Amino acid sequence: MTPILQGLRVVEASAFVAVPMGGMTLAQMGADVIRIDPLGGGVDQQRWPVTASGVSLFWNGLNKHKRSVALDLASAEGRELATAIATAPGEDAGLLLTNLPARGWLSFDALRARRPDLIQLTLQGDRHGGTAVDYTVNTRVGLPFITGPVDSADVVNHVLPAWDLVSGQMAALGLLAAERHRRKTGEGQQVNLALEDVAMAVMGHLGFIAEAQLGQVRPRMGNELFGAFGRDFTTADGQRVMVVGLTARQWRTLVQATGLAADMQALAARLHLDLDQEGARHHARADIAALVGPWIAARPLAEVAAAFDQHGVCWSRYRTLQQLVHEDLVGAQANPLFAAVQQTGVGSVLTPAVPLAFSAAARVPPAPAPRLGQHTAEVLSDVLGLNDAQVGDLQRRGVLGLA
Amino acid sequence: MTPILQGLRVVEASAFVAVPMGGMTLAQMGADVIRIDPLGGGVDQQRWPVTASGVSLFWNGLNKHKRSVALDLASAEGRELATAIATAPGEDAGLLLTNLPARGWLSFDALRARRPDLIQLTLQGDRHGGTAVDYTVNTRVGLPFITGPVDSADVVNHVLPAWDLVSGQMAALGLLAAERHRRKTGEGQQVNLALEDVAMAVMGHLGFIAEAQLGQVRPRMGNELFGAFGRDFTTADGQRVMVVGLTARQWRTLVQATGLAADMQALAARLHLDLDQEGARHHARADIAALVGPWIAARPLAEVAAAFDQHGVCWSRYRTLQQLVHEDLVGAQANPLFAAVQQTGVGSVLTPAVPLAFSAAARVPPAPAPRLGQHTAEVLSDVLGLNDAQVGDLQRRGVLGLA
Repeated sequence: MTPILQGLRVVEASAFVAVPMGGMTLAQMGADVIRIDPLGGGVDQQRWPVTASGVSLFWNGLNKHKRSVALDLASAEGRELATAIATAPGEDAGLLLTNLPARGWLSFDALRARRPDLIQLTLQGDRHGGTAVDYTVNTRVGLPFITGPVDSADVVNHVLPAWDLVSGQMAALGLLAAERHRRKTGEGQQVNLALEDVAMAVMGHLGFIAEAQLGQVRPRMGNELFGAFGRDFTTADGQRVMVVGLTARQWRTLVQATGLAADMQALAARLHLDLDQEGARHHARADIAALVGPWIAARPLAEVAAAFDQHGVCWSRYRTLQQLVHEDLVGAQANPLFAAVQQTGVGSVLTPAVPLAFSAAARVPPAPAPRLGQHTAEVLSDVLGLNDAQVGDLQRRGVLGLA
Repeated sequence: MTPILQGLRVVEASAFVAVPMGGMTLAQMGADVIRIDPLGGGVDQQRWPVTASGVSLFWNGLNKHKRSVALDLASAEGRELATAIATAPGEDAGLLLTNLPARGWLSFDALRARRPDLIQLTLQGDRHGGTAVDYTVNTRVGLPFITGPVDSADVVNHVLPAWDLVSGQMAALGLLAAERHRRKTGEGQQVNLALEDVAMAVMGHLGFIAEAQLGQVRPRMGNELFGAFGRDFTTADGQRVMVVGLTARQWRTLVQATGLAADMQALAARLHLDLDQEGARHHARADIAALVGPWIAARPLAEVAAAFDQHGVCWSRYRTLQQLVHEDLVGAQANPLFAAVQQTGVGSVLTPAVPLAFSAAARVPPAPAPRLGQHTAEVLSDVLGLNDAQVGDLQRRGVLGLA
């Protein structure tokens, strides 16, 4: 068996999260993804977190499995090499993934003149081509006003670059859809996607926009789940847990595990609510919490966990990143998605493969990120057919970078 | 031109966010997505937000463009119809997307016996098949400990179901990758994906896990950006803005727009830092904010906006959902991604299309969600070839639901 996208070649001109993540997902599915950077690296080359010596764990994390080509993109000769790599022949090549504006060497018309069936997917900030990053997009869609403690009057940013992540996967999806179209018709095309539009669309899909349009104002709910029962609690030994009673089954198991059936029945009678309805559980959430909370607070985590797991309650303990690493990624119970990989300049790093498991295709094992320019000579040779003397000449004249 | 995935047929057995979102993305790209539900609907049929009369804006938002089939899945006859729909012939059919366990009528082996080249993608909670939802997965990866106000000692949940969203896009991507493989080899397969693994892998990709493994503890940073300069400020008229100086260009434009070049130079000299380095800006962030903050606080939003936009600063105003709707989705400047769509039981709803724009394929205009069971008769007829008498008989015997 070979990896699911073995043979596909994608050229990437990118930085930061979204497009590098999209390209890396394809690389982890077996595609040959060639990231082209300027000499010295892109604007994300030093992005934090970094090691004590300044190596970017962020860049390494988002560019694993790729081949790295570094070229003097300020020179016509460097841009010509980049163009030649992006438009090189091959029925599984001619795919370009970028978050840089479609001008200069990345002009679609110029590239298409070299390879008429080119597919170029460009992720931009907003639909007008303006600057936008995850941090600014998130402020525009309302979420910081409804995140965080109930009694807060402040805005609360998210830490996870969620819009970048969704956009990156959608970019990879768009590229495969366009490749499918080309396989059927021979036709290439330009595909556009804007980070801000992804966020707007998602807010529509989740019902937030219809809700606002109907005049309903979503309150800030702290750690509570909207529209059913679910929230955080603290155990007798000070551990934090999240408990969810969203579906009827989840609710039933929670009531069984806590032995609170009679109390819940009395509560329902008192409030004239049918707690089998998720909306009723939401209305009664403070009263439900007043029963569930003391049950949890009276028991250490181990006892809560045993009761919850026995009954199949939907719950989880809040863990720090350190706890995640020690509990899930090392030792006999370690998640097989991860492996220890040697990363140049860093050492052994716990590194994930792609979570998609294909029964008819091999899984690509976790691999390190390249050093900047590590594959420049190799790509110029195997994609463009340059010989050692030609590569050596380009190197001497400073047109390319070799790691 | 036709939509990019015109002709592809995907059968979906799903609920909540991830898989419905994956299926809907494919539907918004032109695929014929048939969601099969039990009579009365799935566990997400009533999910909040809802209208005053209880219609789920959530369900409608995540199931637009699909065809809805409702069957008595508790009966052998209903399950047989579902199986027949999922395994119906056609080179662009035989794709099944689900978050229900691969057993019963959703057993891969049973389905493959009916259609050997079936592709079945199953999203599960954790890799062992255990229950996990976005709320519980997020508690397990460390983020609630580093979200929210700097001085908080509490955990802070995110409001956006980010892991669901990423997993949904990845599910759609995995399905297209498997379909590409089948187109090349004729071979179907089972594809598995776990919500928890998606979250773990992303935490690895972003460098969080390597950081923790190296013993670095990411502090809670409030609304500040990690590793460079970026945070929220308040204008003279009480508006909140997010300002980002992550890249060298973003930093330069911020300094220019605020006229603080001399102050920043003096600050750099005092701190012995090169503020052109993003890490240096992070170390000096409190001092930088002490200069930028008063400049913003002295000006109303309009003046701040004019200066920032003139210099191309990366910034944005915090907006509520109501502001988003009124500023971006209605009027002459409305985002063309959205259109007003009549939704049964709700009325006119601002509805987004897919953000991906393909130059060689038609965009599917925004469309409403089906009513539960709206297409049962139609699908039994055009997919299974049943005639009116047969459909009528099934209806009389309660095997199917017609909206």
